[in-house]
Amino acid sequence: MKFLNSMDKDFDFEFNKLVNRSNLDMDSVEAIVKNIINEVKTDGDDALKEQILKFDKWEVKNNLKITQESMKKAYDDLDDNMKNTLKKAKNRIKSYHEKQLERSWLNFENDGSILGQKITPVDRAGLYIPGGKAAYPSSLLMNVIPAIVAGVKEIVVCTPAVGGKVNDLLLAAMYLLDIKEAFKVGGASAIGAMAYGTKSIPKVDVITGPGNIFVATAKKLVFGDVNIDMIAGPSEIGVIADDSSDPHLVAIDMLSQAEHDELASSFLVTNSINLAKKVKNEIYEILPNLKRYEIAKKSIEQKAAIIVAKDKCEVIKLINDLAVEHLEIQTTDANSYLPYIRHAGAIFLGHFTPEAMGDYAAGPNHTLPTGGSARFFSPLGVYNFLKRSSIISMSEKGFNEISEICMSLAEAEGLEAHKLSVKKRLK
Amino acid sequence: MKFLNSMDKDFDFEFNKLVNRSNLDMDSVEAIVKNIINEVKTDGDDALKEQILKFDKWEVKNNLKITQESMKKAYDDLDDNMKNTLKKAKNRIKSYHEKQLERSWLNFENDGSILGQKITPVDRAGLYIPGGKAAYPSSLLMNVIPAIVAGVKEIVVCTPAVGGKVNDLLLAAMYLLDIKEAFKVGGASAIGAMAYGTKSIPKVDVITGPGNIFVATAKKLVFGDVNIDMIAGPSEIGVIADDSSDPHLVAIDMLSQAEHDELASSFLVTNSINLAKKVKNEIYEILPNLKRYEIAKKSIEQKAAIIVAKDKCEVIKLINDLAVEHLEIQTTDANSYLPYIRHAGAIFLGHFTPEAMGDYAAGPNHTLPTGGSARFFSPLGVYNFLKRSSIISMSEKGFNEISEICMSLAEAEGLEAHKLSVKKRLK
Repeated sequence: MKFLNSMDKDFDFEFNKLVNRSNLDMDSVEAIVKNIINEVKTDGDDALKEQILKFDKWEVKNNLKITQESMKKAYDDLDDNMKNTLKKAKNRIKSYHEKQLERSWLNFENDGSILGQKITPVDRAGLYIPGGKAAYPSSLLMNVIPAIVAGVKEIVVCTPAVGGKVNDLLLAAMYLLDIKEAFKVGGASAIGAMAYGTKSIPKVDVITGPGNIFVATAKKLVFGDVNIDMIAGPSEIGVIADDSSDPHLVAIDMLSQAEHDELASSFLVTNSINLAKKVKNEIYEILPNLKRYEIAKKSIEQKAAIIVAKDKCEVIKLINDLAVEHLEIQTTDANSYLPYIRHAGAIFLGHFTPEAMGDYAAGPNHTLPTGGSARFFSPLGVYNFLKRSSIISMSEKGFNEISEICMSLAEAEGLEAHKLSVKKRLK
Repeated sequence: MKFLNSMDKDFDFEFNKLVNRSNLDMDSVEAIVKNIINEVKTDGDDALKEQILKFDKWEVKNNLKITQESMKKAYDDLDDNMKNTLKKAKNRIKSYHEKQLERSWLNFENDGSILGQKITPVDRAGLYIPGGKAAYPSSLLMNVIPAIVAGVKEIVVCTPAVGGKVNDLLLAAMYLLDIKEAFKVGGASAIGAMAYGTKSIPKVDVITGPGNIFVATAKKLVFGDVNIDMIAGPSEIGVIADDSSDPHLVAIDMLSQAEHDELASSFLVTNSINLAKKVKNEIYEILPNLKRYEIAKKSIEQKAAIIVAKDKCEVIKLINDLAVEHLEIQTTDANSYLPYIRHAGAIFLGHFTPEAMGDYAAGPNHTLPTGGSARFFSPLGVYNFLKRSSIISMSEKGFNEISEICMSLAEAEGLEAHKLSVKKRLK
């Protein structure tokens, strides 16, 4: 773990390394991923079956589709408590995302012209849900619900199946969300299949969802042929804390990020050297007791940093420079920071808002920009499944008003037929 | 030019080729573009100067920056008519884009929790304006104005300079828009410089703007390290017309697309075989008289299609399948189509709305999704320069309400520290 103080003379150098932490090494896997996608393009389902045998080590005997029956059975087999858990989480996530819905608009100009913007959901969305190390039913909720709220008619889900078996809780969540088309295929194979279509898997318009470096690289490669939500790397947290914060809780919250992945990052930015030291001690005290000790230990050792700033103003500057995925503000005056936070995927305010609230049930999406990309990417949302069309309807009066401008500019740009298309309509 | 009738037996086969018309051959230039970008990453301005000498054939003697003086002089030298043209276009474009502004929102829950979404402009935007064959001051207006409206503080413009000289009208438009940082560099070099920064060109967060295959490929390669607007190819138009339409105007509008680029596409979809034949004749009658005859001829011969559908309903289906960049509906009942158009970059309604209105001065953006990507991409807009942060502030009551759900799901997903971060806050 790094322990940096903004007064140290090599601070800028060390801090810049944290700012430029994004190092998704796509070059190393690009050739492999390109090959996988090309095989899927050429051989469709046959390629998928071969790739599943090769990478996931199981043989597809029937087909790739997950049956409605298996989803229903998994749901029916849940105890009532877990059924309610899923339902409540679903309802809260849905309620938040409904507030993101945008409306088409028309503006009626004085001259009788109409200018506007039509908003339409994409026809088909493809959602990738990782499997492997663990199953993440919460990722299914977080990806499917915004697509449903956007009004997407056809939703396709792909997820890897270890030994051909899909996690029961994930199946149950599919039933709850009324998923009709889900397939047992993961990694770059799944992204290629959804981008270009195979006999069994429909070609989609937008692909969203988290994944490892192979998935991220595949998403980048198919971008342009379909839209994607973002390119995301390992998860990360930044915590703002001061003398009013509880060092034990700050430590736990940093560890809850570290347990995700050896490559996950946890940062504390504080104006209190006293708190900084306490948090460091707490982290090392809790760490050995965690079930995911090995992962969390590597993450803390290699990726964590405690940063001491000289005052609140510098805390804000540094946290904006880091542009973290999850930002917790664990101070008594948490809300006072809000106007000054420019770059963060999600902002968690106050004592009762650990990041886990947002991972599961507060409502906002947990698919968030990582590695500093909160400078320009947004959380996954309803807007990822919508697109816009401009609307222009000129009245004769409106046409006359701007016909000279259009002809002048067309001429200046050397586009004669553009000019003619206006001139011929003049009376 | 293709002439297709939906009653023909090979129609689906031929029409599908039009639907799948997007064939940006990035593979052929990827190695070159990767190399250019890597040189810029490594050698900064020196690489840019070498590349300009190699590709643009002029030697950078001083620096790459376009001076404020040259912009002011170009503007002062314009006649009053052209000054007014630029100002009017600017004002109309600005007025439209202001309607795209989105607001941050907070939702105050009954339990005292707050959920919301903060909208922030990116810190720096990089706008690419093509040069070379012609200068496009309209592209400068269309890229800069949405960034200004979004509230972007630092705007960087790059444009190639033939022989070191920037087009005067483009310089004048820069002055009008109060551009402070503009650089004489084009192609993949410019995209690499804005994505990673050099000594003279600042690193930006979002890159937008049109360009050739090298620019498109460079934008795709840097995507993820910065955001981009879209990956666009050659321009295209689709016209819906019927017996109420003027075949001469339909032909002119198709030619105004064809004159852009040999690879530009023009489609007519109509329920009238009579009109279809007339438009075909008109096109070949006007064509030889155009100044850009050679370009327009190749485009019409190789990329244009007239498609006869059996009725209005099929016209709508086919035009949605084509998902064109510019869609003109040149019928007397144009507005009646609007509810059924799902996929189009911009929709031009009625007799007085030739595409050229939208290219220059109607207000909506002329940077639009091409090649069928209107299925999932939007016109360039204010939203391309904004990004969102989720806001979560749980009250104690709100926390208690969902703590069980969060702990259940954390446990199901095997994330112990996530569960602990909630449990430790329970009283």
